[in-house]
Amino acid sequence: MLVVAENINIRRTKLGKAMKERNSEPIIEVAKSLKEAGADYLDINIGPGTKGGPELMEWLVTTIQKEVEIPLCLDTKNIDAIKAGLEAHKGKAIINSTDGTQEQMNKLMPLVKEFNAAIIGLTLDESGIPRDANERFQIAFNLVTKAMEFGVSPEDLYIDPIILPVSGMQDQVNYTIESMEMFSQLSDPPPNTIVGLSNVSQSSPDELRSLLNRICLIMLICGGLSAAIMDPLDKELMAALKTYDILTNKVLYAHSYLD
Amino acid sequence: MLVVAENINIRRTKLGKAMKERNSEPIIEVAKSLKEAGADYLDINIGPGTKGGPELMEWLVTTIQKEVEIPLCLDTKNIDAIKAGLEAHKGKAIINSTDGTQEQMNKLMPLVKEFNAAIIGLTLDESGIPRDANERFQIAFNLVTKAMEFGVSPEDLYIDPIILPVSGMQDQVNYTIESMEMFSQLSDPPPNTIVGLSNVSQSSPDELRSLLNRICLIMLICGGLSAAIMDPLDKELMAALKTYDILTNKVLYAHSYLD
Repeated sequence: MLVVAENINIRRTKLGKAMKERNSEPIIEVAKSLKEAGADYLDINIGPGTKGGPELMEWLVTTIQKEVEIPLCLDTKNIDAIKAGLEAHKGKAIINSTDGTQEQMNKLMPLVKEFNAAIIGLTLDESGIPRDANERFQIAFNLVTKAMEFGVSPEDLYIDPIILPVSGMQDQVNYTIESMEMFSQLSDPPPNTIVGLSNVSQSSPDELRSLLNRICLIMLICGGLSAAIMDPLDKELMAALKTYDILTNKVLYAHSYLD
Repeated sequence: MLVVAENINIRRTKLGKAMKERNSEPIIEVAKSLKEAGADYLDINIGPGTKGGPELMEWLVTTIQKEVEIPLCLDTKNIDAIKAGLEAHKGKAIINSTDGTQEQMNKLMPLVKEFNAAIIGLTLDESGIPRDANERFQIAFNLVTKAMEFGVSPEDLYIDPIILPVSGMQDQVNYTIESMEMFSQLSDPPPNTIVGLSNVSQSSPDELRSLLNRICLIMLICGGLSAAIMDPLDKELMAALKTYDILTNKVLYAHSYLD
């Protein structure tokens, strides 16, 4: 399973300041620690990116990839900033994200094809957040169909069935897992799947968040999850993931497997 | 999922001594703490029970059930001790266990029927421990067939696909989970499933055992596990289980759900 680090985000005070000042040092430092902790991708979230988005994204991609060998997940609503990021990016970038509306998909799928990138497709459209597994499946179907129309392989599509906070929308977690199992019927090869894991514990007390995140992660992986946007600096979360890999014989067991 | 407490075992120094001396106090104390911690059943392991097994089992069942309202899982190789326990038992007892040999099954299944009990059936026969999921399935098939022959409902059969230590037999954990998913095809209603959870971390360092146990438990439950013989006094293990129940909407979420 791909670990996409959620940590590089303009909303975090220290990193947001560094982005605005084009101060590379704190950003490189975090990027290195995330790779060290086991991240396979780094999500680069510059928010809406309405003012100077393309320049900022280009600077971040270049600055990080000059110092750390890791692919990036370009996270903004600004399509010009996505494009600037893709042009600067080495390796296979992931675009974060399109929703299931025709307008968004028609703008972003051509970029996936042109840059041989991948893309996260949210099961979300004009009607808002889906109410159950069937509604998620319907939007996932539209995402896969649109990907194929633009010559994008389903494997380059990461469908995000949207995980909602258990505190407030408790019944939705089941629907997320259920829908994920349905997605494997969509195409051959099936699309990949991804979630923004920390969402599940949003608005739960701090002392519960890591526990909720890590049990949810194992449940999602058992349901077939291919990738998660998560915090690789959460040691207990990474220990849960490593233990899963050990128990499923993906990584060779050693008494020191956590070290 | 049923939590069967593994703790009352003649091999534990303090409890073994109490059993031999017919000193009820330490046993009642542990039994109460196990129920308090969330146990649904208590496993009562008196070992081979060759000397005075029936008297000991009868005394334990009577002594515990007089003070604590909880059903028991009668754990010994001595069939006379099992019978004595069943005669003294109130509620639905579980017999722990038969293997898949004709001899054992023919002796124990009639007791299940006579006392309206349930039984654990190990996927183990003359050929020893199965090597993969198919061999487990074959023995499970024999167990279900024999249960039906004696008029025992598959729901009163808890098939134990035998979980082996990840340290040493790492590939077997996958087979255990895989076989469990196959068992649901055996009958309608399907048989229940159970594992001796702590086995998976046998011979791993102490600091890894609880982590291995709890991640394995979640994986097994996602694969359909109905019951586990485990340690309810392991707080992190019980927290993982409660979190699973919360995320699957089985228990209503509250910020205080762990308390």
